[in-house]
Amino acid sequence: MGVVTARTPKQDRSRATRQRILAAAVECLAEHGWSGSTVAVVCTRAGVTRGAAQHHFRTREDLFTAAIAHMADEWLAAVREQARALPEGRDRTYAVVDMLVSVHTGPLFRAALHLWVAAADRPALRPGVTALQARIGREAHRLAVDCLDADESVPGVRETVQATLDMARGLGLSNLLTDDSPRRAGIVQQWSRTLDAVLRRPPQPPAP
Amino acid sequence: MGVVTARTPKQDRSRATRQRILAAAVECLAEHGWSGSTVAVVCTRAGVTRGAAQHHFRTREDLFTAAIAHMADEWLAAVREQARALPEGRDRTYAVVDMLVSVHTGPLFRAALHLWVAAADRPALRPGVTALQARIGREAHRLAVDCLDADESVPGVRETVQATLDMARGLGLSNLLTDDSPRRAGIVQQWSRTLDAVLRRPPQPPAP
Repeated sequence: MGVVTARTPKQDRSRATRQRILAAAVECLAEHGWSGSTVAVVCTRAGVTRGAAQHHFRTREDLFTAAIAHMADEWLAAVREQARALPEGRDRTYAVVDMLVSVHTGPLFRAALHLWVAAADRPALRPGVTALQARIGREAHRLAVDCLDADESVPGVRETVQATLDMARGLGLSNLLTDDSPRRAGIVQQWSRTLDAVLRRPPQPPAP
Repeated sequence: MGVVTARTPKQDRSRATRQRILAAAVECLAEHGWSGSTVAVVCTRAGVTRGAAQHHFRTREDLFTAAIAHMADEWLAAVREQARALPEGRDRTYAVVDMLVSVHTGPLFRAALHLWVAAADRPALRPGVTALQARIGREAHRLAVDCLDADESVPGVRETVQATLDMARGLGLSNLLTDDSPRRAGIVQQWSRTLDAVLRRPPQPPAP
C-alpha cells in the first residue's frame, strides 16, 4: 500500500497473455458470432493453452464480457485521442458524426453487437452485458457532448445527441450483412447539417 | 387459369397450419434467440407435428426466413392501416415517428434482430436474410415517406427519412436488454420537432 513495486517479468508475461486472450476474443466474436466463439477457438487464435485462459477467466461469459469492456476502454481512449485532432469551425460537426458512425460500423461494434444479442436469452451473460452496455452508452454520450461542444442546458440538445448515437447504432446494424457505406455517406452528411442547426441555432420564439 | 376455384377444407387446414408454424417461429425467435429456436421448439409451441413442419419448410433456415417475411408483410399491412388513422396537421410528424419507433421496439423487430445477427456468421441463413432485410428496408422507407408526406426531390429529405429509420433501429437495439422507454420518449419528441423543421421549412438561401 503506497509503495511502488516494480512488476516482475512473470507479472508482465501474465498481463501480456491476458491482453492476447482479450484481443482474440473480440476478433472471434466479430467474425464468428457468439455460438462460434468458444473458449477453445479463442485459445487457438491467441496461441495460449486452455489452462492459461482458465487462470484469467472463470467462465466463457466472464471472458467475453471482459473482452468487450477492455476493448471499449481502449476504444474510448483512442477516440478521445482522435478527437484532439478534429478540425475546429464549420467542418467539425461533420468530422465528429463521421467519427462516431465509423466507430459503430467497425469490428468492435460488430463484436459488441453479437454479445449484446446473445445476452438477450442467456441469463449467465445478461447482467454483465447490461451493465457494460449502460457504461459504454454513458461514456459515448459524454464523449459526443464534449466533441460537439453541445450545451445540454438548451432544450432538445441532450435528446438530439442521444438520437445521434442511436442513429449510429442503427447504421452499425444496417452494415452487418452488407456494405452499407454508399448510403451511409449521404446520411452522415445530412445528419451533420441537421445537428449543426439544432446545436447552434438559438431556439425560435413560439408563434404568436 | 382465370377460373376461380373454391379452396378445399384440406387446403384451408394446410394454410392454417402453415400460419400457426410461422407465428410460433417469430415468437420463439423473439423470446429465445436463434440458438434456442429449434424446429422442435417451434412445433411444440405451434401444436403441430415435426412432419407437418417439414411438409411446409425444407430446412430450419427456410422456416425462420419465411416466418420473418410473413410477419413483415403482415406488419407492413397493419402499419398502412394504422397510418390511415394518423392525425393530420402539427401532431402528425410526432405520431409517425412514434409509430415507426414503436414498431422497432416491439417483438417483431426483436425476432428480426436475432435472425439478422445469426445470419452474419451462418452461410445457410445469410442470402435469404440479406434479401429480406433489403426488402423490408425499402418498404419501410416507402412507408415513412408516404406517412410523412416527404418530398424526396428536396435535397437532404431522403437522407433524413433514412436516418429516422436508422435511429429507430438503434432505439430497437437499445431496448433489447433493458426497458429504454423513458429515454426513448424524449428522443421521439425532440426528433419529431427536428424532422418537421427539415421536412417542412423551405431551404434557406446561402449566406451572401
